[in-house]
Amino acid sequence: MLSGGPSSTGGVNKGPFLAPDVAVVGAGPIGLAIAWRCAARGLRVVVHDPAPGSGASQVAAGMLAPVAEAYFGERELTGLLTESAARWPGFAAELAEAAGADIGYRTEGTLVVGLTADDLAEARRLWAYQQGLGLPVTPLRPSQLRDREPALALRVRGGALAATDHQVDPRGLVPALRVAAERAGAVLVAEPVRRLSDVTAGVTVVAAGCGAAALTGLPVRPVKGQVLRLRAPDGGPPGFRHVIRGYADGEHVYLVPRNSGEVVVGATVEERSDLAVTAGAVLRLLRAAVDLVPELAEYDLVETVAGRRPGTPDNAPILGPLPGRPDVLAATGHHRHGIVLTPVTADLIADLITGNAPDPLLTPFRPDRFVTAPGSGAGVGVGSGGGSGPVTSGLPARSEQWTEDA
Amino acid sequence: MLSGGPSSTGGVNKGPFLAPDVAVVGAGPIGLAIAWRCAARGLRVVVHDPAPGSGASQVAAGMLAPVAEAYFGERELTGLLTESAARWPGFAAELAEAAGADIGYRTEGTLVVGLTADDLAEARRLWAYQQGLGLPVTPLRPSQLRDREPALALRVRGGALAATDHQVDPRGLVPALRVAAERAGAVLVAEPVRRLSDVTAGVTVVAAGCGAAALTGLPVRPVKGQVLRLRAPDGGPPGFRHVIRGYADGEHVYLVPRNSGEVVVGATVEERSDLAVTAGAVLRLLRAAVDLVPELAEYDLVETVAGRRPGTPDNAPILGPLPGRPDVLAATGHHRHGIVLTPVTADLIADLITGNAPDPLLTPFRPDRFVTAPGSGAGVGVGSGGGSGPVTSGLPARSEQWTEDA
Repeated sequence: MLSGGPSSTGGVNKGPFLAPDVAVVGAGPIGLAIAWRCAARGLRVVVHDPAPGSGASQVAAGMLAPVAEAYFGERELTGLLTESAARWPGFAAELAEAAGADIGYRTEGTLVVGLTADDLAEARRLWAYQQGLGLPVTPLRPSQLRDREPALALRVRGGALAATDHQVDPRGLVPALRVAAERAGAVLVAEPVRRLSDVTAGVTVVAAGCGAAALTGLPVRPVKGQVLRLRAPDGGPPGFRHVIRGYADGEHVYLVPRNSGEVVVGATVEERSDLAVTAGAVLRLLRAAVDLVPELAEYDLVETVAGRRPGTPDNAPILGPLPGRPDVLAATGHHRHGIVLTPVTADLIADLITGNAPDPLLTPFRPDRFVTAPGSGAGVGVGSGGGSGPVTSGLPARSEQWTEDA
Repeated sequence: MLSGGPSSTGGVNKGPFLAPDVAVVGAGPIGLAIAWRCAARGLRVVVHDPAPGSGASQVAAGMLAPVAEAYFGERELTGLLTESAARWPGFAAELAEAAGADIGYRTEGTLVVGLTADDLAEARRLWAYQQGLGLPVTPLRPSQLRDREPALALRVRGGALAATDHQVDPRGLVPALRVAAERAGAVLVAEPVRRLSDVTAGVTVVAAGCGAAALTGLPVRPVKGQVLRLRAPDGGPPGFRHVIRGYADGEHVYLVPRNSGEVVVGATVEERSDLAVTAGAVLRLLRAAVDLVPELAEYDLVETVAGRRPGTPDNAPILGPLPGRPDVLAATGHHRHGIVLTPVTADLIADLITGNAPDPLLTPFRPDRFVTAPGSGAGVGVGSGGGSGPVTSGLPARSEQWTEDA
């Protein structure tokens, strides 16, 4: 950690010939937001990425949905999601101001709906759990649902409102973060980092998504997601305003309307790493989407795309110093939650770097939870690149904290 | 018509400064095949098209299926389709030789299948009609179907073999026709023809697909078709060899396997002219395709595309001289049948141009069938461009020939 104030080497942005205070590996939303936060605190920051913003964020829908996404056994993750979502309004306003850009932040909220009686029963079970955590999810009668969104199919059996689950457009977010980071003094270097020894800095932050595995040996694996983008005909806005999170004959699908007329339809969750768009996935997504909102059949299908989420063994992110390497911080493994977790990740990692005591929120997400056993010699370490990092167990070491996990 | 031999102006390919014998408007398969056939007979031929091969043929699947496509009330069209299909083997061999190219001509035949009992009942009604015309369609038991194509879904209730219904790859056909036409001496001019007076030639052939309406006043309208292209995973060939023409829960779909691993899935038939790919159409095509051949769910979806077929009021092509303009021949309106009708169209139009007596096959397809009434003054004429051609009735004048038409 850097201790005590902006820069241990005494100044801000002293030019390219001084080693930076912070090297961030990866210019997705997480890496760029960390760079922005650190640069804004006066640190010299360099961000390394051969293709900024080209990863999972290009595919992501941008739901900020800690409530609708709160799932059995992920209580600590839900806490982090909720905290980050609470930071989003301020983060969005600050970013829009800093970058002078519209990032598509919208606050109409999310409707969770069930198509069939079975779907509704599944959703209700989850709502009860979410309400038990004190999360704001409000069941609606079908008539109330349709008052809010007349575009919903008559077949839809019921739903609930998660009013605080908002959305942002990741394809606006990433360029805005880049502008904000650069305006704050961060320098982007469009070159890949193949091993951690390639970078010299006071602190190195590995925010490389799936690439973190090869750099650190952390158990981050690609989880493929296929996503469609539709567009309302005739250039108008979509015929609905809420984000719709639907259960449709057992399929889970979300529909995210944008001011531009775009509707993002997502997403598959597949344990594979290729980027092929498959007929079956497109069929499943379209069928669920059209079953829930029939007018979508008339929309143009303008994009089919696949991305790789950085998944972890416990579906939670990995945030903090690598075991034995206090100068290397992980900020990866955000899986399906990278966009919503961007503000809290950036704030807490910047806090660590500037020498603040670790926020207790971080405790469940420390990299050392994947160390196989104390003193066993196996575990997370700093890899030498090319995927040759130390083998890890792939299971949390502190299993008592994770007994509820799927 | 040009009379007596290769060229009324006395020679072959005397250079660009002589008016050509034949100007062909449109470098799709029809126009290029006519150009090839005319040039091969020694005529000086110029083909005008700003974007050769960019029309309906780029979207077409390339089924050569006069039997499976024989439909109630289209007896004369079926005759023309059958005749053209019979010419395809020779045409394909001659073209492959002339162009030195593989055009993907395949002769495994077509399986017509019904998914549900209703689908099968609909198909059987049509087979009875087709057999009544003497066409070779052979019903198969489900076990026989699956012996031929194990990839068919177990649900498929029954089917039939149309052994003489073959296929070709239109995306190989068009470049090959261009090479053959150019090698025979035809000259391509990459400029649009906005009115017939733009071209000077002994005979002008309007093979401009939907563009024929603006040039001639003929009642040719765009009929939108959406088509998908899938690709077998891992670079292999598709898991079936026959063309599959399927009825699936009331949807009509065809699946055309290519040696390259591609499977063409088509097609919608829509009375509109835009080229948008819509969510609903992709959903219907994928659902039918996967219902018939489940393994297609695992295939990559590599292309979604829409094209415009040149439709006519009676769904039949328009072949021959315009009323009052013996120097202007129409070769358009091929609707869903442009690829299969390419050989017979090229041969018969070339016959007309070289002064042979019109083949009786052409009689039902003459442009003057759309003249409203003899001497009424209204009817087909040579338009002055921009869609301002004379208004036509849109109905066949010789209605007694068309009483069976839908």
